[in-house]
Amino acid sequence: MLRTPFILVTNDDGIHAKGLRELVDIMRSFGDVAVVSSDVSMSGKSSSITSDQPLRVMPVEKILNVPTYKSNGTPVDNVKLSFNNLFERKPDFVVSGINHGDNSAISVIYSGTMGAAIEGSLHGIPSIGFSLDDFNADADFSEAKIAVARVFRSVVENGLPPFTCLNVNIPKGKPKEIKVCRQTHGKWVEEFEKRIDPHGREYRWLSGYFKNFEEESIETDIYALKNNYISVVPVTVDMTCYKTLGKIQNWKF
Amino acid sequence: MLRTPFILVTNDDGIHAKGLRELVDIMRSFGDVAVVSSDVSMSGKSSSITSDQPLRVMPVEKILNVPTYKSNGTPVDNVKLSFNNLFERKPDFVVSGINHGDNSAISVIYSGTMGAAIEGSLHGIPSIGFSLDDFNADADFSEAKIAVARVFRSVVENGLPPFTCLNVNIPKGKPKEIKVCRQTHGKWVEEFEKRIDPHGREYRWLSGYFKNFEEESIETDIYALKNNYISVVPVTVDMTCYKTLGKIQNWKF
Repeated sequence: MLRTPFILVTNDDGIHAKGLRELVDIMRSFGDVAVVSSDVSMSGKSSSITSDQPLRVMPVEKILNVPTYKSNGTPVDNVKLSFNNLFERKPDFVVSGINHGDNSAISVIYSGTMGAAIEGSLHGIPSIGFSLDDFNADADFSEAKIAVARVFRSVVENGLPPFTCLNVNIPKGKPKEIKVCRQTHGKWVEEFEKRIDPHGREYRWLSGYFKNFEEESIETDIYALKNNYISVVPVTVDMTCYKTLGKIQNWKF
Repeated sequence: MLRTPFILVTNDDGIHAKGLRELVDIMRSFGDVAVVSSDVSMSGKSSSITSDQPLRVMPVEKILNVPTYKSNGTPVDNVKLSFNNLFERKPDFVVSGINHGDNSAISVIYSGTMGAAIEGSLHGIPSIGFSLDDFNADADFSEAKIAVARVFRSVVENGLPPFTCLNVNIPKGKPKEIKVCRQTHGKWVEEFEKRIDPHGREYRWLSGYFKNFEEESIETDIYALKNNYISVVPVTVDMTCYKTLGKIQNWKF
């Protein structure tokens, strides 16, 4: 008899985020669930780790009756903690999200949601980051939850190659089908808004917009999202640019 | 006549790190240099960005007579700031380091040094992260500086494909040649050391060791470093796992 899988649910929006609770609600039907999340928002924390200060992790009020822990660490710290004696078993799956806001294209690099999913995959288990294209703290996750369950069920059935996770982005409203995509090539164009504080000192807010270098490429995640599909991008932990490797090997340093 | 290149020097060890000063010292001979660094250590901050609080950036005492700014942001914030009206020109090159400690293998994902280099490449310009395999705050950079100059000169001569940066790791002592490598496949095995604070509360320190899954692979960066070579790995910003893409496209979700 197969034992019940143990599923770690985490996120980067912090322990009180609605999307976290919604993800717990879905995962309860797939196995034994535990939550480890951060006491504050860790949005944009990428794959940050905390090595210069101590971590504190403690049980808090259960979310939907599953063991729930909060820490002062990052999403990656939380995954690492979960694999190191916090629980009696190591997780069989790591699911991260549901993020309030999309993490398509290059956002995979900045996202704490994806930082956690990538970290899960580094522990050799199937891991998925889920994001809904709605930044609203009170976003409606009802359609997203159906998509999450479908993707997760497919991962249970098919497995994932080791050290590969999925970046799943779900459009607002009622989505069409699931499309497997590649990461869109583009970048954020930043604008820093300058302001003056009440003490006469200057400060700047990061803002900006995404510049898509390939608006017409139908195989990209942003194209899918714009056309109301759920995008699924397999993500690797090997950042070597193999296309460039051969060229540079011929350089005379 | 070619104009003098404008080189941004940054790091993740903070404005007071010796490695930063050493990097400025080398780069002065290649062009006009400016420094933007963080007021505290940002080691392990990966590609973190700061969007939930304002950034402050201000000129401070010049390092080796070049314009020097410190901020309360992350390495990636500092690169973004440098491309947004902090200077009269946009940087032509971003160099990050010299990090106190190596950033080989999977450390590329956690490293703030590499976060800054990756961010530079996203702005479409040649970018390099340099790390010395010595965590000592007072490390000897004299041999490393020769290596840095050789790699940088090669990048100036050959260019780099857009959206590709280099991860350069330099062994301690007197290195052999430069070897172009791929990222080593492996992971950190964490151990959290539990302690009790004077108030009776538990806390944990992140520690651990790197587990190399391919000790014998001569084309990897760790193999190079262990054998006293300088490793150069081209790094991409596209995290799509193309090997897996086709397989998942056949899934019935």
